[in-house]
Amino acid sequence: MHIGLVGLGKMGLNLALNLQEHGHIVTAYDAFPGAQQAYIEQGGQVVASLEALVQSLPTPRVLWLMVPAGDPVDQVLDTLFPLLAPQDIVIDGGNSHYKDSIRRAQALHTNELHYIDVGTSGGMEGARLGACYMIGGDETIFSSIEPLFRDSSVDGGYLYTGPVGSGHYAKMVHNGIEYGMMAAIGEGFEILSKSPYAFDYAKLADVWSHGSVIRGWLMELTAEAFHADPQLTKLKSVIGSSGEGKWTVEEALALGVSSPITALALFARYQSQETDHFSGKVVSALRKGFGGHAVTESSEASEDSSN
Amino acid sequence: MHIGLVGLGKMGLNLALNLQEHGHIVTAYDAFPGAQQAYIEQGGQVVASLEALVQSLPTPRVLWLMVPAGDPVDQVLDTLFPLLAPQDIVIDGGNSHYKDSIRRAQALHTNELHYIDVGTSGGMEGARLGACYMIGGDETIFSSIEPLFRDSSVDGGYLYTGPVGSGHYAKMVHNGIEYGMMAAIGEGFEILSKSPYAFDYAKLADVWSHGSVIRGWLMELTAEAFHADPQLTKLKSVIGSSGEGKWTVEEALALGVSSPITALALFARYQSQETDHFSGKVVSALRKGFGGHAVTESSEASEDSSN
Amino acid sequence: MHIGLVGLGKMGLNLALNLQEHGHIVTAYDAFPGAQQAYIEQGGQVVASLEALVQSLPTPRVLWLMVPAGDPVDQVLDTLFPLLAPQDIVIDGGNSHYKDSIRRAQALHTNELHYIDVGTSGGMEGARLGACYMIGGDETIFSSIEPLFRDSSVDGGYLYTGPVGSGHYAKMVHNGIEYGMMAAIGEGFEILSKSPYAFDYAKLADVWSHGSVIRGWLMELTAEAFHADPQLTKLKSVIGSSGEGKWTVEEALALGVSSPITALALFARYQSQETDHFSGKVVSALRKGFGGHAVTESSEASEDSSN
Amino acid sequence: MHIGLVGLGKMGLNLALNLQEHGHIVTAYDAFPGAQQAYIEQGGQVVASLEALVQSLPTPRVLWLMVPAGDPVDQVLDTLFPLLAPQDIVIDGGNSHYKDSIRRAQALHTNELHYIDVGTSGGMEGARLGACYMIGGDETIFSSIEPLFRDSSVDGGYLYTGPVGSGHYAKMVHNGIEYGMMAAIGEGFEILSKSPYAFDYAKLADVWSHGSVIRGWLMELTAEAFHADPQLTKLKSVIGSSGEGKWTVEEALALGVSSPITALALFARYQSQETDHFSGKVVSALRKGFGGHAVTESSEASEDSSN
Repeated sequence: MHIGLVGLGKMGLNLALNLQEHGHIVTAYDAFPGAQQAYIEQGGQVVASLEALVQSLPTPRVLWLMVPAGDPVDQVLDTLFPLLAPQDIVIDGGNSHYKDSIRRAQALHTNELHYIDVGTSGGMEGARLGACYMIGGDETIFSSIEPLFRDSSVDGGYLYTGPVGSGHYAKMVHNGIEYGMMAAIGEGFEILSKSPYAFDYAKLADVWSHGSVIRGWLMELTAEAFHADPQLTKLKSVIGSSGEGKWTVEEALALGVSSPITALALFARYQSQETDHFSGKVVSALRKGFGGHAVTESSEASEDSSN
Repeated sequence: MHIGLVGLGKMGLNLALNLQEHGHIVTAYDAFPGAQQAYIEQGGQVVASLEALVQSLPTPRVLWLMVPAGDPVDQVLDTLFPLLAPQDIVIDGGNSHYKDSIRRAQALHTNELHYIDVGTSGGMEGARLGACYMIGGDETIFSSIEPLFRDSSVDGGYLYTGPVGSGHYAKMVHNGIEYGMMAAIGEGFEILSKSPYAFDYAKLADVWSHGSVIRGWLMELTAEAFHADPQLTKLKSVIGSSGEGKWTVEEALALGVSSPITALALFARYQSQETDHFSGKVVSALRKGFGGHAVTESSEASEDSSN
Repeated sequence: MHIGLVGLGKMGLNLALNLQEHGHIVTAYDAFPGAQQAYIEQGGQVVASLEALVQSLPTPRVLWLMVPAGDPVDQVLDTLFPLLAPQDIVIDGGNSHYKDSIRRAQALHTNELHYIDVGTSGGMEGARLGACYMIGGDETIFSSIEPLFRDSSVDGGYLYTGPVGSGHYAKMVHNGIEYGMMAAIGEGFEILSKSPYAFDYAKLADVWSHGSVIRGWLMELTAEAFHADPQLTKLKSVIGSSGEGKWTVEEALALGVSSPITALALFARYQSQETDHFSGKVVSALRKGFGGHAVTESSEASEDSSN
Repeated sequence: MHIGLVGLGKMGLNLALNLQEHGHIVTAYDAFPGAQQAYIEQGGQVVASLEALVQSLPTPRVLWLMVPAGDPVDQVLDTLFPLLAPQDIVIDGGNSHYKDSIRRAQALHTNELHYIDVGTSGGMEGARLGACYMIGGDETIFSSIEPLFRDSSVDGGYLYTGPVGSGHYAKMVHNGIEYGMMAAIGEGFEILSKSPYAFDYAKLADVWSHGSVIRGWLMELTAEAFHADPQLTKLKSVIGSSGEGKWTVEEALALGVSSPITALALFARYQSQETDHFSGKVVSALRKGFGGHAVTESSEASEDSSN
């Protein structure tokens, strides 16, 4: 198939190369010249504007968005909307909130445009060598473009999940699980790091990647990370978050579902951003309040009897 | 009554003054000269050694220990053991682990000595003006020294809780609850501190101390702390812990009781001691692992589509 | 002052009696005849409709809403809006979401109507004998009706918290803290209930209400509850929630604040509503998956070696 | 090599078949006749007592214990101790606590016996087709029996982890991580089960097993479980626990490591065992306490304004 790809970031670029390798034709656009250049250097074909992109495609057009979630998607859609014709298909392969996908699908629908929401997992490596897709939207439309997903995913790595929004919903929950799994791994290695043994983290993550109950890609990535930096001295413990973990907890709250693991994994990320928690200060102030200030050696010790 | 008090730290000193004020005779000892001096300056009577302390008391003797939990208690008991006579009574008013109290009571029992374990709450202020006691041990022995507790506690502020260990058990759980309550208060003020409103924390803690559902001594102490330092700029968020919160969680594990609140309040204290968590580094390493390293502006944004 | 009170539920009825007792004139309305009747029986004055209520009041009118949060407030406001005149004041004393209060204040403002959002704490007892108020809105308007709050609160029990929404914001956080405190207390007593000692919960809650660090109204209520039902056999462990705990966690997520205590206290309530968790089934399925099904006695034991 | 295997439970039986298949000679013993029979039926060689087992082996003997952790291991060791000769080797392949392993190694050492502690992961399937081993103890002794581990594990699936205890320590932490991962997966599917979409859980777990970030054996087992029972109607949400999750949290407490994920995964299991939490009753009692009992329709609603 011939598709128009919007967004040549790390995911988009790898996806473009992947699709091309499987015989699809990709015309791409990215607002950032550097990103365009990277694709050109690998033999890719780019155009200078969204208008040019739309004009370059056969109808019904298939446009695959691989841009950051939120406003960037709306901005691209606002520009595309008047340029597209009925029956054109827009795929959102980014990490959009499922409610945004429902809203956008409804908006496009007024012009007989189709919206397919695709949760994409597998990281850069997956985008390049075989991704994992959760795909929501109209099933007939999905079928008409199924070759794109089949060819660029690993074997067994794509699923039509149901009505519009379900693809991004599944991806949201996937990321919620991912948050919990990563936090569990992090916790385990922190215990190891303070244990009485001098474990070789890389070797341990390696052996856990071979035959253990907790084997999987995250453990393999853990092993890789430790092989590259045995004590992770090059990294800080500050952890960012891109939204989907938060959305998962928000969804759990909305549904009345207890989700302590995801919530705590998310809170640990928030906490990692703080250098001097206000909550901690309040607790410290309280301990001072009932335990007293002027401290002498024996008082110091006795202070603990006081709370 | 005439008692021998061991330990003139903040709690012990205040307790001595409190008991004296209520007509009891207190002979005191503290290994730390500065602590002895503080009591002497307030008219207290001290002796130079545990031997002298024992000799100064009428029989059956009543010795009240107000020393740090753990080894210090055992050291004092080891010294006292050969000096005491059958029917003498040892009160441990510190924050000992209830299992230590059971063990010590059994050891003293071999010499017909009595052990009373007393959980003491109310902080320095309570020790001076009226404490709260949870008292375990033989009930007859408790009755024989009840005036000490009645006179130095607030009205309604002492309870015979049952067999030896029960006093310290109750205090342990009390402190577990305290951990959770303090963490809840801390969390609330952290949310306020990032809210769109410029709340006056001191005034808010004040009003919450008058008629609200969450009124209580901890909220009053919160108000005092904010009145003294409106933004708590003089404090760090690093929170120490003296053991009882940890014991409560250990006890919950031993009993198979789910205790997320106490555990998380404790973990927040542990976390506050860390500057660069290993667990956070592992999670960061994983995010890099599947999200990629070389970041350009549009790649940066697209990176979030990748996990 | 003469006010119109909308809502004669448990809170509204008690507030009406309270205000009256302090010399204010209260004309009241409740859509539910039984609620009206209860007030009449205690000497209260009621009218048959919101129209009649508005007509009965001197201008500028003061209307105090004590109705359930959410749609009921909007319904009352929709009816009141065309009936009120510029400078009239509407007080929302219920547990509204602070964003709703901001929205409503803006809507009323178009007609020069004033909106005061009041977080009310202290329960039924507080409403009757002295409540605790957190009050947001225009400060001049607040001052014009300050006597109402001063007279119906406990000494020191009301605070002007800032611009519109701040009263309900403070109440939301108050309830978040309350969730955590209550969960901490519950956890403590659950540990006690499985401890090796036969504690008298009522007496313990009593002594903790006198001089301890964790003394406060919640502990007093705990004591009352245990005095009335020593093992709480008349209660189920299912815990409802009225929204503010959830809002607090949502706010924490929006602000990027780690709030494990509030979140876990809320999740425990969600969990208490479930009889057969899906998440638990999934974990059980996994344990079966790697541990095997056909179980013989020695296999049973060895199964634990397998995960 | 020729080894004596103690314990023919699910793990032991599969391990025996596995070792045999790789050319090792296995003489086995199990106190439970049914377990012995199962092995005999598959061509295995069994003896009637531990004495007979010891006599059947060439020296230095290698005995591999695959019995439940705790007392059963000590019972077997107590029996074996006087029967063994210096330089004999005992392997504990079960889920023993690492401190027990250290203690046992020291006890055996007094008789010049060697102790190797082996954490075994991979479940029954792993035991049969290729396990994952974490191996602690003397490195020379390990090397002398390395073929056993190499041949019965998957490629890359065994690791010498360090001094005695380190194998079981690593396994303990492995299981802590496993608890967190399983809870994360459970939470995700619970959210899906209450979502507005009708997801096919089996297909979703399948697609997540192919190319996603969270792919791994646990997700494959999740898929299998849903294929066998699409709504898990045959399972209860009650989750057992065999000790290692609890040990991990205890270790975290001892080390002062914050481990919310593991702790909450464990607490969820504890909670799943309860039908009517005492903590929940206490919280319910408190809500009644400040919110009031007699409920009428409008009161009901207003009740929420009261807390």
